[in-house]
Amino acid sequence: MSDKKLPKVVVEKKYFTFAEPPNEMVLDSGARLGPITLAYETLGRLNEDKSNGVLILHACTGDSHVAGYYSEEDQRPGWWDNMIGPGKPVDTNRFFVICSNILGSCMGSTGPSSINPKTGKPYGFDFPMVTIKDMVKAQKYLIEHLGIKKIMSMLGGSVGGMQVLRWCADYPEMVRSAIPIATTTRHSAQAIAFNEVARQAIMSDPNWKGGSYYGGPGPDHGLAVARMIGHVTYLSDESMRSKFGRKLQNRTAFSYDFNGDFEVESYLRYQGAKFVARFDANSLLYITKAGDYFDLERGDGNLLVNDNLSHIRFLVISFSSDWLYPTYQSKAIVSTLKKSGSDVSFCEIDARWGHDAFLMPNEQMDKLIGGFLDRISHEC
Amino acid sequence: MSDKKLPKVVVEKKYFTFAEPPNEMVLDSGARLGPITLAYETLGRLNEDKSNGVLILHACTGDSHVAGYYSEEDQRPGWWDNMIGPGKPVDTNRFFVICSNILGSCMGSTGPSSINPKTGKPYGFDFPMVTIKDMVKAQKYLIEHLGIKKIMSMLGGSVGGMQVLRWCADYPEMVRSAIPIATTTRHSAQAIAFNEVARQAIMSDPNWKGGSYYGGPGPDHGLAVARMIGHVTYLSDESMRSKFGRKLQNRTAFSYDFNGDFEVESYLRYQGAKFVARFDANSLLYITKAGDYFDLERGDGNLLVNDNLSHIRFLVISFSSDWLYPTYQSKAIVSTLKKSGSDVSFCEIDARWGHDAFLMPNEQMDKLIGGFLDRISHEC
Repeated sequence: MSDKKLPKVVVEKKYFTFAEPPNEMVLDSGARLGPITLAYETLGRLNEDKSNGVLILHACTGDSHVAGYYSEEDQRPGWWDNMIGPGKPVDTNRFFVICSNILGSCMGSTGPSSINPKTGKPYGFDFPMVTIKDMVKAQKYLIEHLGIKKIMSMLGGSVGGMQVLRWCADYPEMVRSAIPIATTTRHSAQAIAFNEVARQAIMSDPNWKGGSYYGGPGPDHGLAVARMIGHVTYLSDESMRSKFGRKLQNRTAFSYDFNGDFEVESYLRYQGAKFVARFDANSLLYITKAGDYFDLERGDGNLLVNDNLSHIRFLVISFSSDWLYPTYQSKAIVSTLKKSGSDVSFCEIDARWGHDAFLMPNEQMDKLIGGFLDRISHEC
Repeated sequence: MSDKKLPKVVVEKKYFTFAEPPNEMVLDSGARLGPITLAYETLGRLNEDKSNGVLILHACTGDSHVAGYYSEEDQRPGWWDNMIGPGKPVDTNRFFVICSNILGSCMGSTGPSSINPKTGKPYGFDFPMVTIKDMVKAQKYLIEHLGIKKIMSMLGGSVGGMQVLRWCADYPEMVRSAIPIATTTRHSAQAIAFNEVARQAIMSDPNWKGGSYYGGPGPDHGLAVARMIGHVTYLSDESMRSKFGRKLQNRTAFSYDFNGDFEVESYLRYQGAKFVARFDANSLLYITKAGDYFDLERGDGNLLVNDNLSHIRFLVISFSSDWLYPTYQSKAIVSTLKKSGSDVSFCEIDARWGHDAFLMPNEQMDKLIGGFLDRISHEC
């Protein structure tokens, strides 16, 4: 080819609808929900013995559009396009990549904004609580539907990392290797606190109306504030200092008013407004709550301490400036997994971008993940 | 006396009203405000040569009621009663303690909820922006009114520490010694970010009404969320883990709803509701903005680098787990003050309570402050 520009990887959003007989899935809480639809996307090709599947688990407000473009004209790639594609660390020339939107979200999978088949109206707050365990259970139905018995590797950061760990705890026989990134076995009180403040911001917006706002104005102000709170926790003191410092926005002197003198103020307002245009407030409530409920150490010991996990190869990654899921929490994962006899590698990457670092291009992370997957694929 | 119980120290809230001629004070922004009233309280007695005055500067949402009780029946002492009183580190048997409510607040001093003499109605958002410099300028009028030419020592934490530094920069000839605690020469981008989210929570509450809510329902929901945000930043990951961890509130199993399973959620809701009952939303907007504007390094070099400060004795205190005003910011204060030739002592106290540590009883802080004041008083 004379044209050196590589063609875009074009992906398609697909939907898988299922139900446990009779037509509902039994949830962690005991409630029932169904039928359930998962939006998902795939890249690369499943090999003949179906042994090259790589499952990507997205974070709180992510979606199935993990990499590639929806068309040749599409200008914005998926959220982890720097990590996934032909010749990239998760090499779609070799691996079959699957990413589905989590249960409870609003990006194509069943969630509070979906139509409740019993009423013909959006569920709203009639949507039952879903947990990380439920999200993973739904993903398992999708994986089985794709004909895959054992996943070569699964990776995800943040709430995506929780799903990775839950997969290993609940369906270890379906997992060969796993890469939990910037995550935890359970939220700290501080992480719960920030989530709760975000939820209160939404639920105290008069337009939230107990969750029944569909068809009318939504709790946009509350949702924007919730996103702003979340956004600050995804960054770090150092990254904010280097990105914004005390720079003023389009002015040289203080205005002595409340219109946002500082760049960091404008940035947060922009992030809030942008988020409102793409995400459903109820979904944020449900997914943050699922994150808070997630606890692999609750009740009868740590679910990761289990001989059935001993065959799983782990690569645990944390980031030095992540104060939402600090390194000490990743180290706790590592020492727990070792009790199960698993082969565990661990790396704390020195990065100043805070929790968000896992989504940023990072050569060290690329090498770690690329090398790990390469080794796993040759050990088939 | 056979009764061993010490009598309560009873204090009285007083008011001082002043105006720069003709009847307004010129503010940092160039706007004018007046007349201005400051609520203040005093403990101990001013000695004959008026050399034993100790000025306490309160933080963002504090007030003039720094120690003692309003009556023998009063059950709740002032906010720093563990630090100030007869025989305490700030010993009111020896020192004359003054604490005034800051300009812009709602606890007796002139602020947005005060009556605008020009309209006969509360100022609301017609209240001009006030800065830390303005707050200190108003305090100077009070100190002069009390007949004090030179303050023996001044101390305060957080926004109170900013006032301490501003006093030294603006009126060094009136200061003999100063103790800035858990503070900074200017807010980091992260600190501005948290304040801005709190402000957005208030200003997006429909009951805020552009600041003109007096006489009707106020932006209680927004104010509660704002307080919850602030509260999380005053604590630390470690203190929240030890205080709350993942303990459930009045239940043994997850409820799978949004009513607040975790103790930390209930605690934050309680803190939000309690704050709404005592504080004005507009005052929080103005005071947080004053904190964000505060910048001793803006423009023509650092205001603390000034030979006129060389006679002032400093004790700078930070706390190891304070991530809102981390120790590196106190160290920057120290190295700056040394450039002025000042005598500076510095201590980072190992405490896990985060920023709030400065308000908690702490033996090391007691000794540091008590010893420092004792030395200063003997060097008269």
